[in-house]
This record gives sequence, structure tokens and C-alpha cells, in this order.
Amino acid sequence: MLQFTTQTSTDSVLERDFTVGDVPGVLWSPTEHDEPAPLVFMGHGGGTHKRWPAMTGRAALLVAAGFHVAVVDAPGHGDRPRTDHDEREIAELFRARAAGEPEGPIVVRYNAHLAERAVPEWRATLDALQEVCTGPVGFYGLNMATAIGVLFVADDPRITAAVFGLHWPDALADQARKITIPIEYAMQWDDEHIPREAGLALFDAFASTEKTLHANTGRHKDLPRFEADSAVRFFVRHLMKN
Amino acid sequence: MLQFTTQTSTDSVLERDFTVGDVPGVLWSPTEHDEPAPLVFMGHGGGTHKRWPAMTGRAALLVAAGFHVAVVDAPGHGDRPRTDHDEREIAELFRARAAGEPEGPIVVRYNAHLAERAVPEWRATLDALQEVCTGPVGFYGLNMATAIGVLFVADDPRITAAVFGLHWPDALADQARKITIPIEYAMQWDDEHIPREAGLALFDAFASTEKTLHANTGRHKDLPRFEADSAVRFFVRHLMKN
Repeated sequence: MLQFTTQTSTDSVLERDFTVGDVPGVLWSPTEHDEPAPLVFMGHGGGTHKRWPAMTGRAALLVAAGFHVAVVDAPGHGDRPRTDHDEREIAELFRARAAGEPEGPIVVRYNAHLAERAVPEWRATLDALQEVCTGPVGFYGLNMATAIGVLFVADDPRITAAVFGLHWPDALADQARKITIPIEYAMQWDDEHIPREAGLALFDAFASTEKTLHANTGRHKDLPRFEADSAVRFFVRHLMKN
Repeated sequence: MLQFTTQTSTDSVLERDFTVGDVPGVLWSPTEHDEPAPLVFMGHGGGTHKRWPAMTGRAALLVAAGFHVAVVDAPGHGDRPRTDHDEREIAELFRARAAGEPEGPIVVRYNAHLAERAVPEWRATLDALQEVCTGPVGFYGLNMATAIGVLFVADDPRITAAVFGLHWPDALADQARKITIPIEYAMQWDDEHIPREAGLALFDAFASTEKTLHANTGRHKDLPRFEADSAVRFFVRHLMKN
């Protein structure tokens, strides 16, 4: 059930914290819009949270374009407690990083674990949000949010357009093959963690007849800012067709 | 030398036919702009001409964004005569197409030949256009215009941003390795003529630190219209920085 906890508004943006069960989230909405405004459900990356600058920045662009935007803290992230399992995997990731070992195998395994915990929460959140967001729904999430999002989107027909990116195909390709909605997919051409062939393989796996790959030069964290503008235009094309 | 032959204008667009030597072209310009407006030099695809709908459509978007746009007929195209060599290669292409044989080897070879003839003409045209277009210069050309454009851009430091796409790397990769300006590159993920690996290889060859690949589902001629909007934004980012 959707419970709003705090509410802030400016001239153009209404920001509401909410909980669904013990999952905390934020819903940003345009203060003026033709009902029903479409919703973009976002996910944050690993090690960050629902109000990370990438989230608030993308939300601002989307709300200005007329969308509701919702994001929740993933399990073990933001305002949520870590399990012993979380602590062990995070310690292992930091150990590998310090030792100069590949991070991929740990991130892939841990993200797959987090996805199992997060998908039911995201589904319950989207159920609850339908009280206030009755228009079309899109999904936008990179990195860990792609690991969760591919599983989420593959089994939720309410979501009709999605932006994914920056992930390995290992645990996701089979689910991606079930996805047929329009997709925009971002990868970094010189990603030091995700081999180029792995990024191309995940893009290739989506069964969508309308899908676009955006590959930019640079390392994993160098995704250009203009890709957020592109994602907004993608959602406008697919969720605001009229 | 630049000679204007006809002139038409509407509320927002000034269209001037011109010749430079025996090469005919069109220059579209915004009727009102802060001088000096940047120029996008375009090239048309094989078998078409300077006023093909893809050219006039892209020009309309670019002029509305404040650019001059110039395009000339390639050798053997539009208002220009074909040589015996042109006739033989075109006959060979049609024969291969009718026989269901690969078109690639013929297109690659003929485009390389046309590029040799066209590059000096394009350079002379850009020289001549500097009379009226004194701002920054970009290049926009797919298919055959990429075959000509990669050679043109590689040796002309006046061009500081380029959109290429839809070509084989065979005759172009060595020149692409000399190009360091920002690039946007379009390819079709299911191109029936250009193997996926060939498209990726040409994108990879550019030495640019800022380059973006846009790969869309669909066959060779299915490039989505929204890629033209993307190209306009690319030129705005790079040629209208202020």
C-alpha cells in the first residue's frame, strides 16, 4: 500500500517521499499536467540510492517533459539495512578492486542476487503507484538497475518502453530474449569492466523489433550527460504518442 | 568560384542553387541568423542527388536550428553526366542485385572510385562557400557520402564535427584512423548488405576521443527518422557551443 510520508513542492515539481511496505521511495511529478501523465519507473546503480545525483538529474529532465518519475532504494542500499550476505559481497568487491582483480564476476553474481530480492518489491511498488499514476509506464535503469530491470520488465506487461545499459549479459540474456517492447541501450565502448562483446551481446539479446544501441567512447563511468536527454526523448516518443 | 544561379526564399529559408566549376549544388540558409551561422556540408547517397527527400528533409531540420546547409551532386549523379566507367559499374550492380549476389564488393569498389573524383570537388566547393559561410563547418553524409566524406574530412581541418554511417570499412578504415574530431556514426543492426562486424569495425577505426555509435534494428534502408533529429542535436552541441 502506498503511504506518502513527506511532500515538497516548487513552482513546477511536486516531490513526495513514500513507502510501500518497508521499501522507501520518491515520486516526482509535474505540478501541472494533462491527466494521466505517464510514469517512468527508475532504478539507481549499485552503491548509490534513490536521491543520487544521477537520479535527481534524470528526474528533473523527465518531470520537465511531463512525466511522473518514481525510484525506490534497492535492497541493502540508501535507507535500507544490509544483510550479512550484502556485507560479505561488498567486502569481496572492495577486496577484488584493491587487488586489481576483475570486478565483473562479483558484480554479476551479487546483482543477480539483489534482483531476486528487488523484483517483487518493484512490482508491489508499481501496483501501489497505480493509485496516482494511471498513464503508460516506462522503465529507466543502468548498471545494477539493468540487472534488476531486465527481470522486472520481462515479466510486467504494464511497462511498454525501457532504457537499459552498462551490464554484462550473463544472468540477463535469457530474460532479455522475452522482452519485445522498444528499448534504448547504452554502453561504453572502452568499458574497463564490461568487455565490448559482452555489452553488444546483451543488446543483441533483446527480442524487440524497435531497439537502439548508443555506444560512446570512454570508460565505464564516462557515460555522456546527453544520453539522459536522449532517454527523455525516447520516452516522449513511446509514452506520449498523441 | 561560387556562382549563384537561382534563388528562392520563404519566411524562414533562403534556397540558392549554385555552381562551383561544373559542379551544381544547393545552399539552404536561415533567413535570419546571428552571423556567422555554422555550415553543415552534406553528401547524398548512391543513386540519388542533391534534392533527394533525405537531403531536403535533413536540410529543413538543420536550417530551422540555425545552420547553413550545402550539398552538391556527386560525380555521375543528379544533373551530372555519367562516364562509361559509371555506366559499367551501375550495370554490374544491377546485374548482381538481380542475380541475388552480394552488392558489397561492387559498392565498395565503385564508391572508392567516386570518392577519388568527388573529394577535390568538395574541397573546391567548401573553399568557394567560405565567401558566404564563415562560421564553423560540420559534415553529414551516410552510405556513399560516408565513402567520400571520410576521405574528405580526414584531410580538411576546417571540418570539426561529422556524422557518418552505413558503410563498409574496407576502403575507409585507414583514413578513419586519421580522424580525431567528434563523430556520430549510424549503422543498422540487421543490415542485409553490410555485415554487423563491418559496421562496428568502421566505427571503431575513428581515432576520435568523442564518438557515438547509434545502431538500430532493421535493414539497410530502415534507418529511423529520429536519427536525423539526433544529428541536428549533435551539430548544435559541437558547432554552436556558445
